[in-house]
Amino acid sequence: MPDNGHNRRMARKKAVVDAAIARADQDKGLLLVLTGNGKGKSSSAFGMVARSLGYGYKVGVAQFLKSRRDTGEEKFLGNQPNVEWHVLGDGFTWDTQDRDADIATAKRGWEVAKQMLKDDSLHLVVLDELTYLLNYGYLDKVQVCSDLASRPAAQHVVITGRAAPQCLLDMADTVSEIRDVKHAFRSGIRAQPGIDL
Amino acid sequence: MPDNGHNRRMARKKAVVDAAIARADQDKGLLLVLTGNGKGKSSSAFGMVARSLGYGYKVGVAQFLKSRRDTGEEKFLGNQPNVEWHVLGDGFTWDTQDRDADIATAKRGWEVAKQMLKDDSLHLVVLDELTYLLNYGYLDKVQVCSDLASRPAAQHVVITGRAAPQCLLDMADTVSEIRDVKHAFRSGIRAQPGIDL
Repeated sequence: MPDNGHNRRMARKKAVVDAAIARADQDKGLLLVLTGNGKGKSSSAFGMVARSLGYGYKVGVAQFLKSRRDTGEEKFLGNQPNVEWHVLGDGFTWDTQDRDADIATAKRGWEVAKQMLKDDSLHLVVLDELTYLLNYGYLDKVQVCSDLASRPAAQHVVITGRAAPQCLLDMADTVSEIRDVKHAFRSGIRAQPGIDL
Repeated sequence: MPDNGHNRRMARKKAVVDAAIARADQDKGLLLVLTGNGKGKSSSAFGMVARSLGYGYKVGVAQFLKSRRDTGEEKFLGNQPNVEWHVLGDGFTWDTQDRDADIATAKRGWEVAKQMLKDDSLHLVVLDELTYLLNYGYLDKVQVCSDLASRPAAQHVVITGRAAPQCLLDMADTVSEIRDVKHAFRSGIRAQPGIDL
């Protein structure tokens, strides 16, 4: 059991953070970036979708890499009345190295995202695994950042994916790097329904 | 735009990880720990709740610190038919330093969690912000780890909270450390409904 000094130090740290949080009094449509190699980026975005639905807000989701339509997140969240759900990885050919087809798919996907970024009825827009399209050079970073910047002022956007480019980190209000300390797949455990998909 | 060498390296890295994931073929009730100071730990857990509901699974959630009952996650997920939702921070006195009362509340909370850890109808149990109770010495780590270890073999458990103790990290299948690179509250922006609560 920790000694009292340890408890006091932890409580003091928590109090400092709590005080800074209590002082914060502004509202803003946030840009949140969840990056890093660890488990939890997309699931965190979907948790915010769930939270938003609790207030009756409308939400838009674009999945840029996935092409499967049987994930738990889509079966549950994608079927909610206040959710607009787009699976945009349809036919992605990352492994076949057909760069032209990939770029065309990416650009089509971004057109869908852009519509959501103009729709001020959407409280939250999730751009799931967008970073890959930027890192592979399939979308123009400057154009993407400009479209993000001109969205409605109260609209929140969550972007997920490994290795978020610097321009996104710079313009983001909140950035979390999800570090992979340990992952079950390295012990031979496959993706589990309800957890990973 | 990245050169082709960059793209090839990224694709190769992704292929190595994808191959390891493809080789993984076992199922197991996972223990996942989401720790670190950044935004996204609890929301990630709630995303896994949403995914699980997509498959029709039953889920149990215990919130150990929160006492408020008006969060987006509870309003939406807590009202789903397949969800058992417990807010156990009721009357927590962290700031008043009434250690005995805190310990009693923590122990009552753990009794609720233990019942869920014995219930093999629950696909997923979320123990939200449990780490604080362990770090403050309000719950016995050895007892908690032993209760976790004796849960049904197929049951997934997600534990969230800063500074997860080593014993939890050791027994976990998946550990993500959510690093706080940047957080909106430091710019004076308060917790946003649908994002932070």
